[in-house]
Parts: sequence; structure tokens; C-alpha cells
Amino acid sequence: MAAHPKTQSTRIVLASRPERVPTSENFRTEMVDLPEVAEGHVLLRTVYLSLDPYMRGRMSTAPSYAAHVELGDVMVGGTVGQVLESRHPDVTEGDYVLAGAGWQSHAVVHGSQVRRLGPSAAPLSTALGVLGMPGFTAYSGLLKIGRPQPGETVVVAAATGPVGSAVGQIARLKGARAVGIAGGPEKCRALLEDFGFDAAVDHRDPDFARQLAGAVPDGIDVYFENVAGHVADAVLPLLNLYARIPVCGLVAQYNGSDLDGRDRLPGFLSQILTKSLTIRGFIQSEFAPEMYEDFLTEATGWVQDGTLRYREDIVDGLENAPEAFAGMLQGKNFGKLIIRVAPER
Amino acid sequence: MAAHPKTQSTRIVLASRPERVPTSENFRTEMVDLPEVAEGHVLLRTVYLSLDPYMRGRMSTAPSYAAHVELGDVMVGGTVGQVLESRHPDVTEGDYVLAGAGWQSHAVVHGSQVRRLGPSAAPLSTALGVLGMPGFTAYSGLLKIGRPQPGETVVVAAATGPVGSAVGQIARLKGARAVGIAGGPEKCRALLEDFGFDAAVDHRDPDFARQLAGAVPDGIDVYFENVAGHVADAVLPLLNLYARIPVCGLVAQYNGSDLDGRDRLPGFLSQILTKSLTIRGFIQSEFAPEMYEDFLTEATGWVQDGTLRYREDIVDGLENAPEAFAGMLQGKNFGKLIIRVAPER
Repeated sequence: MAAHPKTQSTRIVLASRPERVPTSENFRTEMVDLPEVAEGHVLLRTVYLSLDPYMRGRMSTAPSYAAHVELGDVMVGGTVGQVLESRHPDVTEGDYVLAGAGWQSHAVVHGSQVRRLGPSAAPLSTALGVLGMPGFTAYSGLLKIGRPQPGETVVVAAATGPVGSAVGQIARLKGARAVGIAGGPEKCRALLEDFGFDAAVDHRDPDFARQLAGAVPDGIDVYFENVAGHVADAVLPLLNLYARIPVCGLVAQYNGSDLDGRDRLPGFLSQILTKSLTIRGFIQSEFAPEMYEDFLTEATGWVQDGTLRYREDIVDGLENAPEAFAGMLQGKNFGKLIIRVAPER
Repeated sequence: MAAHPKTQSTRIVLASRPERVPTSENFRTEMVDLPEVAEGHVLLRTVYLSLDPYMRGRMSTAPSYAAHVELGDVMVGGTVGQVLESRHPDVTEGDYVLAGAGWQSHAVVHGSQVRRLGPSAAPLSTALGVLGMPGFTAYSGLLKIGRPQPGETVVVAAATGPVGSAVGQIARLKGARAVGIAGGPEKCRALLEDFGFDAAVDHRDPDFARQLAGAVPDGIDVYFENVAGHVADAVLPLLNLYARIPVCGLVAQYNGSDLDGRDRLPGFLSQILTKSLTIRGFIQSEFAPEMYEDFLTEATGWVQDGTLRYREDIVDGLENAPEAFAGMLQGKNFGKLIIRVAPER
């Protein structure tokens, strides 16, 4: 093992907690010395960093399913990296691996916490999107909770996003009708033309609620909830008896909601009761032990034969992560948002 | 078949729609001529009339899982009656049957819509309570949706009611810990002494939320929702990861909720997401095809050997149904509310 010349890492830490949409003031860039690569550990250079809505939750101290990031700590995040040095028997120098190295250019992590990425299966970046956590969120939530039956109608919001676009396409693969909700005519066109949804509805249109109703003549059997906000308000009245609502994200709420002083909970509970609805929150990790391998096998095949399409929004440079992240929370990106921290080779 | 002397029925019809708690002005008593007993039909004299919270929903035109009662129509309701005349081959004069004859002293119904009650199984009135719809609501919702595991904690509100008291007792039969919520010290005492709950909490106590927290040191795994209102607000923060919430009734909401101008939906959705909760509305009829016979067998055994206890609040006289019904919606009764319309024999 050759000594490596790299001894420092550029990293972005949490400087302060945002109240609504994070700004550049909430982050701080630092140069830090890398620790020694201890026995069992590996040194990675980050190639791709995934930016995902859940990170907004980690910036707050509000109760969540995962610990928040402490002030001064590096921001968390999934990464694809290359192994520069390995002191773990299962990891080889030069390997590309999936890791959770966070918002930094280099990291030393334990070798058991990386997963080797095969060279030919699909582009490396897909390990953070359609073949990674977002894709598995779509696959597991839709199949385990949504359980779409042939001929049923599945509605998903943020439908051009990495989770939403996979939800719609997998729903169609299972014989259901897929209706996507997205912001703006360009995204709606992509839903129909690129992702093959049966219908697309623009939630920015003032006539949104009526258009959504028109797009689901047989009602909604599965609503994949990854947005909340006023989208859900329009969906609720259209749900069918025994409809299922997998809840995997509440982007609109992360930044505070547009309250109008009305308590919507009684109406929501009435819908649950009168329509015998199932609402089920989930984090994809719950289903990983039982279905992650199946997902990888099945979804890799779909990606390779073009059945499951995906779109990536790759931004160059770690220094651009804060702005890109804030834009994503406001719906400005289009496709899976990934930071290219360094070239693949 | 002897001609029967009875040609008229006393009935209570819906006179106007209530805004909140129904009053006597919303009902009207009438005498009507009974129709001929046509081929296939039976004439019943009502012995017991069941009064249940769902009837409040039928008085409104708000969307519901069942059609509302039209103005001038007889109020719906489950009944135990005796057959005065039968023109159906499976029904015999003198039989006691379960029917849905509504708020009236006599009714002509089709013979296929009554179920014969065995003479010795349990008191006739239990067919409207612990061995009827409320008991099956508890049994099916708890076992199919709540799925309590040994050692888990089950919380139920309106716990001295016919559904709640069965929920707690069946939870204990399945090895779970049962915590009941009720209004007032007398009902709380009954939960512990009569129904064998592990703990009871008085929701009228100003210190309710803290007391509830103290009664569930390991958190809540199943919350059987049949009340809504401020009870649910106190329960939500105590729910464990993967907790299940069967929703079968929203009594507090039927009469309008005590809004404080806060939108509680975002907080509710956050709880669903961060704790991977399952919320599932249901009506017992959904599960009847697959488990009603099992319920009858199992629950009748429990009632006969004293394992499953029940309490009935029997009010004499059909004319007292409106006042008793309004009182039930305000939590004034104690046990399954039943109107004795006529003596058993």
C-alpha cells in the first residue's frame, strides 16, 4: 500500500440552524486534517454527494427518526467515493464504493460501512438515485404499503424527483395507472414524455384541484405522500375507499407550512374514518433487510433495459452544495440532485 | 299462521338535522300503519334498540361511509326483536332475532335480513353490545390493525364504552398491557376493578397529559382511536416507533371540535413520518366475512366463562331514546346504551 499524498479534507459543516429555507449563512466551509487510516478503515475521495430532502430535518433539533447534526459537525449525506487507501480486507484501493461520507472531499470510514459498486451495472451516480436510497424508497413504499393492483390509480407528487419518478414508473410496471403532480409545464411534459406517466398535473396552476380531479376519473387508490402542503389537500377528497397513503417525506412542511389558521386535522381524520384509509409513515431502511437485494436485482435490470428511466441534476463543486440544496427544497431542481465533488477518474 | 292484532307501529323519525349535539327538536314521534307482511318477510316487535355514536353521522349530510337518514325517515339502528309473524321459511314465529329495524316498536323486514339468536348463549341484549357490532369492532380492529404483541401497551379512550372495554380486555387476553382513558373517577375505578385494565387515566383531570405519560412508561404501541378530540393530542407524543392506530370513531368530532385556531395536521403528519406510524380507518363490516364467525365463537366463550366482561346501560321506553342518545354523545352514559322498547316476553 503506497503512502497517499492526501492529508486534508474540505468539508461543509452546519454553522447555524435554519428557520425555514436554509441559506449560505447556515453552512461553513473548513479545511481539516484527515485522521490516520486505522486498522479496518479506508480513506475515500468523494466523487458524488447526494442531496436529499431528509437533510433539512437533520439541520433542526425537532424530534425526528434520526439524530440531528450538531453545530460544527459535517453535514451528513450519502456519497459515492473511490478508495485511496484500505486497511480493510474486503476493500481494495481503487474500488468505487457507496458510503455515507457526508459533505466533504475526503473521509476516513470503517470498511464495513461501505458497499462496493460493480463496474458495469449502471453509471456510478445511480447508486445515489434510482438504484440507491430514493429508488428503494419508491420501490419499498409503493410495493409494501401502497400495494397497487392492476387497474388502480396511483398519484405521486414531486413526480419528477428521484422518488416520485420511480414511484410512477414502478406503478405502471405493476399494471396501475400513474398520475404525477409536478410544478410547471416543463416538468409535467417530462412526466408524460420521459417517464411515461398516464397523466400529469401542474400544482402551480390555479385550477390545480379541478385538473387533478379530471386526471383521476376513477378516484385515487394509492397516494404516495412525499410533499404534504396544499397538494395533499387536493388529493384527500379524491381518495377511494381503502386507499393507501405511504408517507415518506413532507418537503413542504420542512420549511414551515402556509397556514391559513384552519385546523385541518379533524377533516383529515374524518377522511381516514369514512374511507377506511391506511396512512403509513416509513423510512426505507425499515424494509431493507427483507427487500433491498430484490430491489437491486429488479431495478438494475429495469434501468439496464430502459424500463425504469431516471433524470439526474448534477452540479459541479462541493462549494455549490448549500445553494443547490436550498433550491431543491424550493422545487428548483429537476431530477435527482447530485454534487460532483470530483471527477470519477 | 294466525292473524296478528298488531297493525300500527310507534316510530321516531328525523325531524331536522342537528348542528352539534342533537336535541329533542331533531326528532319526531309518529304512529304509522304497518304494511302487509309480504311473501318472504317477517313482522317483528322490537325488544331492544341499540344506540351508537355512528348514528350521529347518519343525521348529517356530510360525506360518510353510509347514507344519511332522510328527513322524515325513521332513525336507523340495530335491534333485537321477536318474530310475531313469518312468511320466510327460515324464520319461526316466536324466534328472537338480530335485525336493523331502527327506532320503532314494530317493523316488517325481509327474513333474509335477520339473524336468529340462540336461546342459551348469553343474554339477548348482548347481541347489540359485547357480542354484537361494538364487540366485533373492538375484536376486528384490535386484532387485524392493532395487532398487539405480548408485552406491548394498548391505549384506548372511551374505555368504559362497549368498544373500549372490549378492546382493553381482548388486549390483555393477547398478552398486552391495557391502559384505559375515561371521564371521571367512577369510570376509571370501573376500568381497574370491573374490566381489569392495568391502568386508568381520567381525561377530565387538568393533569391528564402528564398522568397518561406516567401510565405508559414504555410508550404506546397501539392506540385504539374512537374519540379524537384532545385525548388524541395527548396520545400522539407518546406513540412508539411503528405504533398502530385503528380509527373506528370520532365521537368528539361528531359534535364539532373545540378548535383553538391551530392547524394540527402538520404535527400529525410529522408524527406519522418520524415514528413510522400506521393509521387505519375501518368499519367492522369490512372484516365480517373473514372473522365474524371466529369472533362469535371466541367472544361467546369469553363472555360465558367471565373472561370478557361488559356493562350495559339499559333505558326503558322508546320515547326516551332521543335524550339518552344525546347524553351518550356527551359521555353521560356508562356502558353499552340500549333502549328496552318492550319486555323480552
